[in-house]
Amino acid sequence: MTPLFAELPAEVSIYEVSPRDGLQNESAYVTTDGKRRLVEALVAAGLRRVEISSFVSPRWIPQLADAEELARSLERPDGVTFSALVPNAKGLGRARAAGLREVAVFLSSSETHNKKNIAKTIDETLAVYREVTAEAAREGMRVRAYVSTVWGCPYEGHVDPRRALAITRALLEMGCYQVSISDTIGVGTPRQTRDIVELFLAEFPASQLALHLHDTRGTALANIVVGLELGIRDFDSSVAGVGGCPYAPGAAGNVASEDLVYMLHGMGVKTGVDLPRLVTAGKVAAALLHRTLPGKVHQAGVESLKA
Amino acid sequence: MTPLFAELPAEVSIYEVSPRDGLQNESAYVTTDGKRRLVEALVAAGLRRVEISSFVSPRWIPQLADAEELARSLERPDGVTFSALVPNAKGLGRARAAGLREVAVFLSSSETHNKKNIAKTIDETLAVYREVTAEAAREGMRVRAYVSTVWGCPYEGHVDPRRALAITRALLEMGCYQVSISDTIGVGTPRQTRDIVELFLAEFPASQLALHLHDTRGTALANIVVGLELGIRDFDSSVAGVGGCPYAPGAAGNVASEDLVYMLHGMGVKTGVDLPRLVTAGKVAAALLHRTLPGKVHQAGVESLKA
Repeated sequence: MTPLFAELPAEVSIYEVSPRDGLQNESAYVTTDGKRRLVEALVAAGLRRVEISSFVSPRWIPQLADAEELARSLERPDGVTFSALVPNAKGLGRARAAGLREVAVFLSSSETHNKKNIAKTIDETLAVYREVTAEAAREGMRVRAYVSTVWGCPYEGHVDPRRALAITRALLEMGCYQVSISDTIGVGTPRQTRDIVELFLAEFPASQLALHLHDTRGTALANIVVGLELGIRDFDSSVAGVGGCPYAPGAAGNVASEDLVYMLHGMGVKTGVDLPRLVTAGKVAAALLHRTLPGKVHQAGVESLKA
Repeated sequence: MTPLFAELPAEVSIYEVSPRDGLQNESAYVTTDGKRRLVEALVAAGLRRVEISSFVSPRWIPQLADAEELARSLERPDGVTFSALVPNAKGLGRARAAGLREVAVFLSSSETHNKKNIAKTIDETLAVYREVTAEAAREGMRVRAYVSTVWGCPYEGHVDPRRALAITRALLEMGCYQVSISDTIGVGTPRQTRDIVELFLAEFPASQLALHLHDTRGTALANIVVGLELGIRDFDSSVAGVGGCPYAPGAAGNVASEDLVYMLHGMGVKTGVDLPRLVTAGKVAAALLHRTLPGKVHQAGVESLKA
């Protein structure tokens, strides 16, 4: 048997989602200035890809109603890409007008979850994203995509991962540069992750895939290790685990960026992130949200990293 | 390459440490009756090995000063083994008098940590445990051992795992039936865990080894998956993550039993534990300690398991 971790990558890419996926699941409203300070702290920590907000209707996500204002307020350091979620070509136009060069689209591999979240069928949603990707191509913008509920759905339970595979194929064919397959409710376990990742890597190169894992049941890092071992090089995370889980108040949401970076650096895998500065960014998030955030390294503190 | 998880075991053994390692690191004092209710809830959930207390001096661990009274108050269901920590042959005698048939001894692979914790050198500690194991053999009792700070020490930082290996060799030679190698401060990452576990499995059969991992930085389950993949079949855990970390107030301690069981069952590995009942035991612990406990499944709740 080939030894475990015999072919670890020298470096992986972290896609930071706390200002968007994180804050949209927090009950506290963070001011535009607070969001700007969070994003700046994340960039100061070395994160190079940050999803800063969402251009969906403010009625859907009031926490992110200031997407334009936030995007306009941010400086654009060299080598840093800010992106934002968009629901359609109109959202893409707003993102572009606010200075963004990358957007993200999202749909579910569960028909029920997609209808409850987006009020469209999966096919209707894909048709909308064909307009988004066509318009993005004309404007020279990049589009990333999320496919959610791949590990399980709060309404349908188990979802056949071949449904997510077919949706991923459609998204890549229409021009998305990367699809982040998502354990939206954090139910995944490592053998299941092996099965899903192997299914996807049999058809797509690792560079077109990312893992977006929620840590609701503590398994996110274990699942990430499996993805890493199988070849995945792109992982989404949220500083201090900002986000929570809408289906279980108090429960953890996105995997914490500090925990991910701590583990990767411990394995000799570079991220470009400075961990003590990332812990500082997590403290900015905690101060903005006025609650104890679930990230483990966030809670243990940076002093503990010296030991 | 052999596929990941091609040779997962049908079943693993969980050694529950919440009443001892958990409570000794909690500031709240739990009454003997409360401890009894916790142990009974753990047994009702299907746990078969529970470390219920410690027969060290009450001056060292006042939270566990009622070890005799607790041990005497517990019924002994068939197939359930209760054990307790003992520091020396006198402690073994107290445990035996209270009706226990198994004890645990503990020392550190870091000389500094051992001196600060036990006020003896490692060699002096091993000499004491030779008396314990000899006496246990005369009495037909079983002795388990912990070797702590194997992944790192709060005083010395990195500790050469060959020191833990040599200590483990001595403990097994004197008659301990199993040595639980411990990431006492929860600094471990998966590649390091691979290196440590492979070092130990090169010399000892898996049945003589267990992993005792703290989740201070969120990596415990990822490390357990590595151990499982390499052949380890015995894991220590604490319901709801009871315990905390003495070096970082508010930080997580022992890996949560519910998270471990959730992950193992999701991988098709049996534990003999009923997860909803284990979640109930975690609620008993939370009610006794009057604080939010860190376990992720504990926080997400058992209702979420239906999805």
